[in-house]
Amino acid sequence: MATQLSHVAQQDQRSQFHPFTSINDLKAEGPTVMASGSGVRVRDVNGKEYLDGMAGLWCVNLGYGRQEICDAIAQQSQRLSFFHTFNGMSSDVVAECSEALLARAPVPMSRVFFGASGSDANETQLKLIWVYNNLRGKPEKKKIIARWNAYHGSGVATASLTGLPGMHTLFDLPKGPILHVSAPNYYRNAPDGMSERDFSRQLAKELEALIEREGPDTIAAFFVEAVMGAGGLIPPPEGYFEEITPILKKHDILLVADEVVSGFGRLGTYWGSQTYGYEPDLITSAKGVTSGYFPMSAVFISPKVWDVIEAGADKVGVFGHGYTYSAHPVGAAAALAALKLIDDLKVVENVADVGPYMMQSLRDRLGQHPHVGDIRGKGLMLGIELMQDRGTKQTFPMANRTGRQVLKAAAERGLITRALGDTLVFAPPLIISRTEVDEIVDKFALAVDDVLKS
Amino acid sequence: MATQLSHVAQQDQRSQFHPFTSINDLKAEGPTVMASGSGVRVRDVNGKEYLDGMAGLWCVNLGYGRQEICDAIAQQSQRLSFFHTFNGMSSDVVAECSEALLARAPVPMSRVFFGASGSDANETQLKLIWVYNNLRGKPEKKKIIARWNAYHGSGVATASLTGLPGMHTLFDLPKGPILHVSAPNYYRNAPDGMSERDFSRQLAKELEALIEREGPDTIAAFFVEAVMGAGGLIPPPEGYFEEITPILKKHDILLVADEVVSGFGRLGTYWGSQTYGYEPDLITSAKGVTSGYFPMSAVFISPKVWDVIEAGADKVGVFGHGYTYSAHPVGAAAALAALKLIDDLKVVENVADVGPYMMQSLRDRLGQHPHVGDIRGKGLMLGIELMQDRGTKQTFPMANRTGRQVLKAAAERGLITRALGDTLVFAPPLIISRTEVDEIVDKFALAVDDVLKS
Ligand SMILES: Cc1ncc(COP(=O)(O)O)c(C=O)c1O
Ligand SMILES: Cc1ncc(COP(=O)(O)O)c(C=O)c1O
Repeated sequence: MATQLSHVAQQDQRSQFHPFTSINDLKAEGPTVMASGSGVRVRDVNGKEYLDGMAGLWCVNLGYGRQEICDAIAQQSQRLSFFHTFNGMSSDVVAECSEALLARAPVPMSRVFFGASGSDANETQLKLIWVYNNLRGKPEKKKIIARWNAYHGSGVATASLTGLPGMHTLFDLPKGPILHVSAPNYYRNAPDGMSERDFSRQLAKELEALIEREGPDTIAAFFVEAVMGAGGLIPPPEGYFEEITPILKKHDILLVADEVVSGFGRLGTYWGSQTYGYEPDLITSAKGVTSGYFPMSAVFISPKVWDVIEAGADKVGVFGHGYTYSAHPVGAAAALAALKLIDDLKVVENVADVGPYMMQSLRDRLGQHPHVGDIRGKGLMLGIELMQDRGTKQTFPMANRTGRQVLKAAAERGLITRALGDTLVFAPPLIISRTEVDEIVDKFALAVDDVLKS
Repeated sequence: MATQLSHVAQQDQRSQFHPFTSINDLKAEGPTVMASGSGVRVRDVNGKEYLDGMAGLWCVNLGYGRQEICDAIAQQSQRLSFFHTFNGMSSDVVAECSEALLARAPVPMSRVFFGASGSDANETQLKLIWVYNNLRGKPEKKKIIARWNAYHGSGVATASLTGLPGMHTLFDLPKGPILHVSAPNYYRNAPDGMSERDFSRQLAKELEALIEREGPDTIAAFFVEAVMGAGGLIPPPEGYFEEITPILKKHDILLVADEVVSGFGRLGTYWGSQTYGYEPDLITSAKGVTSGYFPMSAVFISPKVWDVIEAGADKVGVFGHGYTYSAHPVGAAAALAALKLIDDLKVVENVADVGPYMMQSLRDRLGQHPHVGDIRGKGLMLGIELMQDRGTKQTFPMANRTGRQVLKAAAERGLITRALGDTLVFAPPLIISRTEVDEIVDKFALAVDDVLKS
């Protein structure tokens, strides 16, 4: 941009190595530096206001500056600024939070293990799964299956689970016993004329073929997001989970539901698994648990897994895993406030109402646009895929960076979206109103036209 | 314990899976549940007060309830509750924090990469190192060497780096191209009569032999803590780093300083590397950066590494790594407040004074105790190793859990310590006074006698 960078933008540019950012872009354009936020809006250091169509990174579900959470954080940090839960220690808010979470699980769960990120929670899952099968006397049953386009985190092992080539090639990943099957991308990958259900059957066959090729006794777990997020906003085709889950059961393979984005209401049910009707053996949650106000993750462990670990307690001894910030009391206080607000504000109900409304508005406004190939998603997790030619599904040349251009045009108009390639994504705060949705759709449609005259 | 568990303790016991805790112990005894903290003291839900000789988990360096940090957190969480730094975004406090950190680095550093835990920061290091050597056209140079007894985190890869059998066996670790050399444990492992310097030479030889056996062109990096913490409180023998570093230089191997515990003053210098005079290529920090009030980690990247990454920007494209809570604005605000307090309160100077005083007091009080084998450490990171027979270095039978007994006796007396096997550890808040140190030493000496009549 031609505008002079602010002092803080220059500080940032010369000192911070940004996650998921192009070094060249940052050098050329500098960062966009935010200064404040309230409700669904944030404001940058130049005073420009944005409607945050992404709730930060799919996490500020209750909006910015929510007084009840800020108060809980302020009070707890004064009362007990830190404590840990190693070696049988705990704190009162953590105990309360841990029970409150179990009470909200979609299926009966035995224990919660805390961390500070979705990534660390999925690292915990991997380690738990390996311990579980060691304790069951199945030391060969250790391979993990995830899906291409999955996003499960950025640790070495979790980035290996993740199915994005941009996170693998230069990083020498995947490492470890991790395998991938196809993404359930109906729009892009289903053969012409195949029904969603048939596509789901095809994906299930692929999964079962892999399991049989590798040997069912070597496969420990299958990781799923309800709707794939960072990998391109991909909802499952009809019947997907119905086709998949019996195969996992048959081969004694754990189903790990990565609910980091989908948990706490985003899809219009409390958990993503409830939208699609499957029962996880392990759940990964983060983001929405504190509405992004404090880094926290929670792994839910079903009786099936926990009973094996508990029965093996003598062999386990001191369970050799944990993070300093596992079960931070201030995070627990933030989570308790957020959980209460989700109930009190009827957030899940709001998503069930506003989500379909937003989908319909996007379709009404852009459904016929010559460069809009697909509008898809569930609840308040929506994606709009741009196409050079929607008829032939011809994509734009990568070098055009069309998605990024639209993102920038939207930013100009005061709207934050996210570009996953040429799929533009919305995951706004779950407390958003219909009026604010109208504003998103309006600004977005104009931004699309700014770049791609319709 | 015979005492009736409180309601919250019961909640915790039935719902939380605790990190680094024995499932059996928790079932038998229940958790100790903290409710509040101020300065160097915490109080449990039953109103019992403890002097926290461990600063939480070696992290609450500025003590509990420090007003300036609480205020910074409260204000920032209201002002901008969350923002991220993906895709060239940032926030004002993050920019400022990132510059403030660079300004405090022990050697010139180019960039800071943020995360939320020491573990995630070390996962970042591994991925950075592999990218670095790929970009340098050295795709074979990828193996990582760490040391037995090292603690570098709990992710799959970071727990692999960690050199603790209890974190490996049941978890199928180490995974990946990770090798270990001996811990620099002079007290336990040096042959009788060998000088510290000769022991350091022996360790250096072992390292070089490993490098040559594997092939120097296959070794990317060596990870060190200044003083080993969780692995048993092991300071390096005299001359250790002087012997080691030329070997790394000679073979073009990066030195990664894990300063998660030793950073921000714990050893009586701002960084642990300054106590021992070595120059890291990469630094991992966490804990003290926010005094534990908010989960934050910061990786420091030297020009040597950064220049290669920046020159490879075209190849890198969007750098495919990062965490939702990388560069959380509330964490940055907490860090800015903590960094200022470290300066204003002359915390490093206090450690340089109180650390040796505490060491001397422990030696005066317990140096001749028949069951105290070794008192060691640096700054405010001290360990007391118990022995059945200090003359023959005969350890207590593991089943006695002597260290744990002393820990419990100390807790009875209102003092928190940490038992790493039979080594009891202190790492109190860095703002501790000589009078409070006297209290620790006194309570601790009595606790030792409670268990081991002298
Ligand atoms: C589905 C899913 N799993 C895991 C993660 C990783 O979470 P974090 O960034 O907190 O490590 C994310 C982050 O976006 C995610 O979307
Ligand atoms: C030296 C060292 N490195 C890394 C870590 C991991 O940090 P965290 O527990 O925040 O993941 C620790 C934690 O104690 C540590 O002591």
